[in-house]
Amino acid sequence: MIETPYLLFLGDAPDNLAAKVARGIRDWRPDNVVGQLRLAGCKADVGVPDLGLEEARRKGARTLVIGVANRGGVIARSWKSVLLKALDMGYDIASGLHNLLRDEADLAERARANGRQLFDVRIPLVKYPIANGRKRSGKRCLAVGTDCSIGKMYTALCLDKAMAARGMKASFRATGQTGILITGDGVPLDAVIADFMAGSIEYLTPDNDADHWDLIEGQGSLFHASYSGVTMALIHGGQPDALILCDVPGRPHMRGLPDYRLPSLEQVRDTALPLARIVNPKCQVVGVSLNTADLADDEALECCARIEKRLGLPTVDPFRHGADRLAEALDAL
Amino acid sequence: MIETPYLLFLGDAPDNLAAKVARGIRDWRPDNVVGQLRLAGCKADVGVPDLGLEEARRKGARTLVIGVANRGGVIARSWKSVLLKALDMGYDIASGLHNLLRDEADLAERARANGRQLFDVRIPLVKYPIANGRKRSGKRCLAVGTDCSIGKMYTALCLDKAMAARGMKASFRATGQTGILITGDGVPLDAVIADFMAGSIEYLTPDNDADHWDLIEGQGSLFHASYSGVTMALIHGGQPDALILCDVPGRPHMRGLPDYRLPSLEQVRDTALPLARIVNPKCQVVGVSLNTADLADDEALECCARIEKRLGLPTVDPFRHGADRLAEALDAL
Repeated sequence: MIETPYLLFLGDAPDNLAAKVARGIRDWRPDNVVGQLRLAGCKADVGVPDLGLEEARRKGARTLVIGVANRGGVIARSWKSVLLKALDMGYDIASGLHNLLRDEADLAERARANGRQLFDVRIPLVKYPIANGRKRSGKRCLAVGTDCSIGKMYTALCLDKAMAARGMKASFRATGQTGILITGDGVPLDAVIADFMAGSIEYLTPDNDADHWDLIEGQGSLFHASYSGVTMALIHGGQPDALILCDVPGRPHMRGLPDYRLPSLEQVRDTALPLARIVNPKCQVVGVSLNTADLADDEALECCARIEKRLGLPTVDPFRHGADRLAEALDAL
Repeated sequence: MIETPYLLFLGDAPDNLAAKVARGIRDWRPDNVVGQLRLAGCKADVGVPDLGLEEARRKGARTLVIGVANRGGVIARSWKSVLLKALDMGYDIASGLHNLLRDEADLAERARANGRQLFDVRIPLVKYPIANGRKRSGKRCLAVGTDCSIGKMYTALCLDKAMAARGMKASFRATGQTGILITGDGVPLDAVIADFMAGSIEYLTPDNDADHWDLIEGQGSLFHASYSGVTMALIHGGQPDALILCDVPGRPHMRGLPDYRLPSLEQVRDTALPLARIVNPKCQVVGVSLNTADLADDEALECCARIEKRLGLPTVDPFRHGADRLAEALDAL
């Protein structure tokens, strides 16, 4: 577990898109954030107070989180003096970059000297078991998508918020780097060894209260040639009671695969549900989550209504319209 | 690539089952074997000449292959003096055990001192790419099963032999430790990082002659909760033109999962084929391969005939009856 609260390091991010990780933490765990630290030339702003290392430390910050993804996922030279100083001041550092903190000799040495921790959330820290497929107590919901990067994490986080507001027991279960930094815990599934993928998801979502929901962050897509194996392991390791179908209306082709069209929501439903029922015969598809960021307000509502009618399932953009109807659907199961 | 020919090390194997790897090499690449080396108390015999290290070396052996899997996959103390002597004599050593050769300090040091190689085929040696899903030239066949350990490797190896006899161009493509030791090359798929699984299979089966068949060794099962993600990656990375369905008649439950019944061959067909068509719309199911080792001769033939009628597909036990009819089915595609 990464210690909170965080100071969000935006470095020299060229735009807000590059600070996606920091923004996710600010959006979903605002109580975990004391402020942002920006270097000269930084063009990103996640709308929290600008603080220096010392000021943030006085406000209680325990971990400096690298909230920026630059090209190639490297740790820039220009960041180093801040990171080293943070370690001297008693901060841990957490990062989801490909370039690992621990592989930087100066950071590793300084962390050791100060007794601080470097969290590289891209790499599993746990020796996961092989999945045993045994039925677990408690309930689980998984978002499955027509494609990668289509809103599966936001769907689970919106549900987490809506369910908490309704007094339902729920836990967001992170399976990717951003999700892990948001919650401070999870499984970096794309970096797990093949034989242990499903087992890592069983480990992440253990026995729980009968009325507790694990909201498992989805990854990839059964229809994405590069990552379908990861999605399959989530379905079989997650043992979902409920599936939510995710889509971005209008995306021209599968992400990174220009020769592949996206499947229909019906195809996703008809493929994912029988596979989920292998491990949980009671699994149901309970709703549709659309990412309508590219549509105007009236278009977004019209699109949801059209798909709701077509599939006969509650259909919302949970980030835009709230996830209450999806939470209701889970509650009704 | 592991250098051939091999001397097969059977150690102190308690029975023939423990020498499964050596037996696989003897069955499928007899030309690569000069003999077997057995320690005192060894109860296994793969039916090749018993040779000492020196005699085998004179007959041309280049690599000592650990052909025995003992409990826990460890390198026994009692083996060490032979392995060290082999390195001194100029042998490389290859192993598929969990306990890596390279992690044994004395072996690693002796290999270095002698300029010899230790091949731990359990671990990938290549940095595989992420799959790109692009159509490749040449043809590919993949065996998919109702369960793990059901005869998928033997099916591909039998086909390899039958196709060579018919003058067809074909290559067995190993995806597991035994297969890699048999052929000297391949991808240890169960040890590949999740994000690179499908890419490793694209790497293993690159563009080829239009009439060349890659016979890809299957792994796991779409219906096996522990390993279905690996099977999914094989289907999408392998881009198969042909699927062969594999089963062991009468197995009571999924391997290692006492709560799970095996699916029917029809369920495997109806699940695997639409998934394969995502990456190769022309994919066909061309035949059924049964492992009838537990049946008498007449029962085996009767079982094949019954399933052939039920599924309308050529059905054989390729190890018992030959794989000619499956080779014909591929040839006819």
